[in-house]
Amino acid sequence: MQKLNIIKIGGNVIDDPETLRRFLEDFTALEGLKILVHGGGKVATQVATGLGIPVRMVDGRRITDEGMLRVVTMVYAGMVNKNIVAQLQAGGLNAIGLCGADGNIIPAVKRPVGKIDYGFVGDIESRQVGTGSLAILLNSGFSPVIAPLTHDTLGQLLNTNADTIAATLAMAVSERYEVKLFYCFEKKGVLLDPEDEESVIPEIDQQEYRRLKAEGIVSAGMIPKLDNAFSVIDHGVSSVFICRADTLLQAAAGGSGTRLY
Amino acid sequence: MQKLNIIKIGGNVIDDPETLRRFLEDFTALEGLKILVHGGGKVATQVATGLGIPVRMVDGRRITDEGMLRVVTMVYAGMVNKNIVAQLQAGGLNAIGLCGADGNIIPAVKRPVGKIDYGFVGDIESRQVGTGSLAILLNSGFSPVIAPLTHDTLGQLLNTNADTIAATLAMAVSERYEVKLFYCFEKKGVLLDPEDEESVIPEIDQQEYRRLKAEGIVSAGMIPKLDNAFSVIDHGVSSVFICRADTLLQAAAGGSGTRLY
Repeated sequence: MQKLNIIKIGGNVIDDPETLRRFLEDFTALEGLKILVHGGGKVATQVATGLGIPVRMVDGRRITDEGMLRVVTMVYAGMVNKNIVAQLQAGGLNAIGLCGADGNIIPAVKRPVGKIDYGFVGDIESRQVGTGSLAILLNSGFSPVIAPLTHDTLGQLLNTNADTIAATLAMAVSERYEVKLFYCFEKKGVLLDPEDEESVIPEIDQQEYRRLKAEGIVSAGMIPKLDNAFSVIDHGVSSVFICRADTLLQAAAGGSGTRLY
Repeated sequence: MQKLNIIKIGGNVIDDPETLRRFLEDFTALEGLKILVHGGGKVATQVATGLGIPVRMVDGRRITDEGMLRVVTMVYAGMVNKNIVAQLQAGGLNAIGLCGADGNIIPAVKRPVGKIDYGFVGDIESRQVGTGSLAILLNSGFSPVIAPLTHDTLGQLLNTNADTIAATLAMAVSERYEVKLFYCFEKKGVLLDPEDEESVIPEIDQQEYRRLKAEGIVSAGMIPKLDNAFSVIDHGVSSVFICRADTLLQAAAGGSGTRLY
């Protein structure tokens, strides 16, 4: 099977032009087929505030009402996505910017209203992913750059977490490709000592992860991200890496970051 | 050669949800390969005003400063483009939303500063168009939906008139396809009597157009649009049609609108 790298970056990379520029250079230098999944960053909140659209949070999670959906569609699929594509093209990579509606690559179901109404948020499943469309693009020499928006296939765009999109895509395309999934975080990897950036654990399995969680060694902020990352192991994805954006190339070569297995 | 329809819609279609919905149904029903090029509509001005970004006009033309470029990138490539794609997907058309940076389909040159500095505006040439990327997408079953943004291939997005994009794409791909270009305007076609919507001239050539212009029969507002439309004749494009959005299917069948030749 052909190799495919899927890399997810978040706000800490997107919000700093110089960090983003360096990361995109490294992404371009990464060999073989690749997909970039990006989050949103602070701009969405800035634009919402500017437009007088209230940012509603419940239990630390953003509620995507109609106004906020418009904002994230503009910022994620417009400003962030197209600026990344233009920069990658400038570096010679044939990037193509997409959201989940484009080519029907990520159909979703609007999250049912339970205790909380998250609004226009899409839940996704790997077996629904449009792997055929993605394979056509990848095999034609395009590198998809994916904004964290999906659609309900009935005309409604939906907001979906970028970590979840990266994980779901990785599982879906693992039937066709040998997939490595990279989550770029603020830290160089999973740290034994959160205060010591050099205390990266090179490899960690589910059992070890549970032990570190129980002992309180994994910081609270990392837990949802790591849970998400571990969820793809045993679903066909050969390797999941946690690294810092500026160590992507070393992590891909096995010399940096944490490999989950 | 395979047939390809390129359809351009502007603000009058985009700004009215019901008009847009009907147009997208007709676009979906149109047989064969197709590309949709869309303009922006009023939303860009609304968003700019909301964000306190001044809308600067010189001689009736918008100046695209840095703030306005951010706005049109958000609105055209984000909100407008992705909502159109989601609606087309809902109707069963495998649409893929792009700007000129995606797949490097429309490289541009930033307009040199002359008497007027238009700001981040891109001038384009048909021989620069990425017809290879477009052909891959079209022949793979995707219908490209193109937002009126281009890039300078050095990382800078640029604002480019949607009429110009439609014309330039049509000329560029006419080497590979038998192209029909449709401009959807407010009127049913070129009218002999601007007050009489039924006075559509079925066919018009350059000579006749010059005569009608000289006699003041063609309204001032139509002249730049018609000049643009005529510019592609004699550049390989087999037919250019002027029609109203809700008569696209009749125009395609030769029963409505004005054919330029």
